[in-house]
Parts: sequence; C-alpha cells; structure tokens
Amino acid sequence: MNTRLLDIRAGVLSKNDQRAAALRERFRAAGLLALNLVSSPGAGKTALLERTLSELVRAGERPAALVGDLATDNDARRLARSGAPVRQIQTGDLCHLEADWIAGHLATAGWDLAALDYLFIENVGNLVCPAGYDLGEHLRVVLLSAAEGEDKPLKYPAMFHSADAAVITKIDLAAPCELDLALMRRNIDAVHPGIAIFETSAKTGAGLPAWMGWLAQRRLSVAEGAA
Amino acid sequence: MNTRLLDIRAGVLSKNDQRAAALRERFRAAGLLALNLVSSPGAGKTALLERTLSELVRAGERPAALVGDLATDNDARRLARSGAPVRQIQTGDLCHLEADWIAGHLATAGWDLAALDYLFIENVGNLVCPAGYDLGEHLRVVLLSAAEGEDKPLKYPAMFHSADAAVITKIDLAAPCELDLALMRRNIDAVHPGIAIFETSAKTGAGLPAWMGWLAQRRLSVAEGAA
Repeated sequence: MNTRLLDIRAGVLSKNDQRAAALRERFRAAGLLALNLVSSPGAGKTALLERTLSELVRAGERPAALVGDLATDNDARRLARSGAPVRQIQTGDLCHLEADWIAGHLATAGWDLAALDYLFIENVGNLVCPAGYDLGEHLRVVLLSAAEGEDKPLKYPAMFHSADAAVITKIDLAAPCELDLALMRRNIDAVHPGIAIFETSAKTGAGLPAWMGWLAQRRLSVAEGAA
Repeated sequence: MNTRLLDIRAGVLSKNDQRAAALRERFRAAGLLALNLVSSPGAGKTALLERTLSELVRAGERPAALVGDLATDNDARRLARSGAPVRQIQTGDLCHLEADWIAGHLATAGWDLAALDYLFIENVGNLVCPAGYDLGEHLRVVLLSAAEGEDKPLKYPAMFHSADAAVITKIDLAAPCELDLALMRRNIDAVHPGIAIFETSAKTGAGLPAWMGWLAQRRLSVAEGAA
C-alpha cells in the first residue's frame, strides 16, 4: 500500500518545491528576508517572535508574520500587539504548512512585499512533518526549549538537519530543568555540524541581541542580492 | 491534487482501523490493558513510563512496552532498566505509529500476551498525526508538560479530544514556568469535557499514586472482561 502513497506524496512534494522556489524568487526580488520557524508545540515560537517583531518595529524595520495553527487565532492576536502586520493560517487537521497556502495568504493579505524587510512564517508545532515542506523561506530556524531534553536533535534528525539555525529557547529554565546545555549543543552539532546555535529567553531577554544581530546580517545579504 | 491524496489516506486509515480492532480483540482476550501514550517531543513520555514500569514490576505486575522513535534506541535502553520487556520501533521519517507495525513487532518480540498485564505503546513525539491512527489500545493518554503553556489543548484539539486521559507532566516546573494550572485544566476540559486529568512529576514522584491507581483500576476492568 505504501508505494502508491509514497509516489503520490513525492508528486505533492515536488509541486510544493516548485511553488516554494517561485515564492523564494519573489521574496528575493523584493529584498525581503523570509524565515520559517519550526519546533514542537510549546517550544516558544510565538514568544520569541513577539519579542523579535516588537524590537524590529521599534528599530524602524518592517516585519510581517504568517502564523500557522491547527485551530485558534491566539498567536496572531498576541503577535499583532507588536504593530507588525500578522495573519493567521488555520490548517484544520493538517500537520504542516505548504507553499501554496503561503502564496494564497500573501495574496489575500494584499501586502506589498517590496515594502517589507522580513517575513516570519511560524509553522505548526511539529518536529516531524514540516521538515519535508519548503515554504520558499531563505532560512529555516528550528527552536528547542531548555525543557525538552538534550536528546531531541538525535531523535528528530531530519528537522535539525534541514534547519539553517537552531535556537535553544527558555534558557531561563535550564537550571530548574537540570539541562546539560553543552550536551544539547553537542547533539545539535552532531546532526548538523557547524549550524548556528542561539540561546535565548523571551522572558529575560537573554541572548536576544545575538539573535537580532544574526537576523539583521542575513537581511542585509538578501537586500544586497536584490539591489 | 488533494482529493486523490485524501481518498488514499482514508483507505489507509480504514485498513489501519481494521487492524487496530483485531489487535484490541487480542489484547482483550489476553486480559491485557493496552495504552497508547502520545505527546509533543520532550513532554516526558519516557520518564513517566520509566517510573510506571519500575513501580509495576516492583508490585509483581507484568508490564511490557513498545517505543516508537524516528531514530535512536535511547528510550528502549532507558526503559529496559525497569526489568520489563521493551522493544524499540524505529519509524525512520514516519511521524506516527500504525497498527500493523504494532502487530509486526509483537510477532517478532514473541511475547506471550496472556502472560502480560499491561502493554504501553509510546508513540512518536507529535501532537498532530498520531491522533488519526488507532493502535488497538484500550486507552489513549495524552501528556502535556507544565513547560508547554496553557493553550496547547485549544491549539491541538484533535489529540486532546481523542484521548481518554490527560497527564500534565513536569508539574515541578509549574512555578518556574509561571504556569496557570487552573487555566491549563480548563482548556483541557473545554476540548474534552470530563476527561480524567492527572498532574505528575516523574522527578519528584508527585501525582504518581493517582496515576498508578487509575491504571490498576482500568487493568482490572479489562481482566474481568477477559475472564
């Protein structure tokens, strides 16, 4: 049974890849840095994004966000407080976002991409399925909270391997969770040697300057490519 | 494109349902209580299971466990220290377990089901996809850690709706995470009114007696049904 299912999935994936490539070209032409944030549920994607959007808006940058969830629009409402344009994508029972949903929601939102500097796409909380779906992002960022345990990179290698950066979130919980941070970092590096690793706390603000600096530097590369 | 994919998925699901029903009948005839543990990555399924297996073995009960992971056999090695028979199911890139994998691994394990009192199936860490796959379990238990945030039941309603019990794990982290426990409980109850909710810490042992008592009571019902 699985051969046929896999054949069709492969077809779906390659159509998704084509749409993703078209989106990436649009983002590049607009000089916009697009990021796909992935993690398990509760790793703190929304909290990090909330701080990131607020800091970017305060600095005069122009970010926007698309936020995927099976149900509820809680995250979009939280994020909109930053002042950045935000749209919720409700996936129903679909466990990941796909490129044509991104294209569709960008169209309905009516955003002028050339007037944006950053597009953050917050994926559905899932460390497995979103790994296989390119959304046209320039950079995929995997988040992992200090409360999730050191072994997660080894247990979900596809996601960590496909990401361009890893953010260890809720670093303020490292002590109460008795986290072996060096081991968590080694496990990330074992699955994806040399990947950029950030340690942040959206609560205390720890590690945010390094994260924001990395974003700014990457955005500059994209803007220079578009110019 | 999605219609055809969905048709085939529906076919796969119903074949899975048939296999699951056959498994459940085997478990019932053996007087064995079968449980499917689901959660996001890092919620603490293995830690709770480790304590549960050890306590059951110490009490003279006969538990066994099947443990699903994309990669690594870390969990099986941890769990085997309890003295209970344990087998790892490596799913590769599949985001959930299916009933025929359970049947296949039970066959290769060569376990005499009639000589077991409990079968715990630890699913892949994923709050979305495993909701759609019956594994022949009597009871599905969803775990949610105190570090994941109060809103998760509302954001992953299918999983919480399909579960027979919810376990809030890592309750020792409630204070450092500033968890609003009453709100988390209300959100679980909103998605699945009346569901049994446990609050546990595998680290401190808090809440384990209530959890173990519930298991024993449910196991008795199954054993009486088989007799």
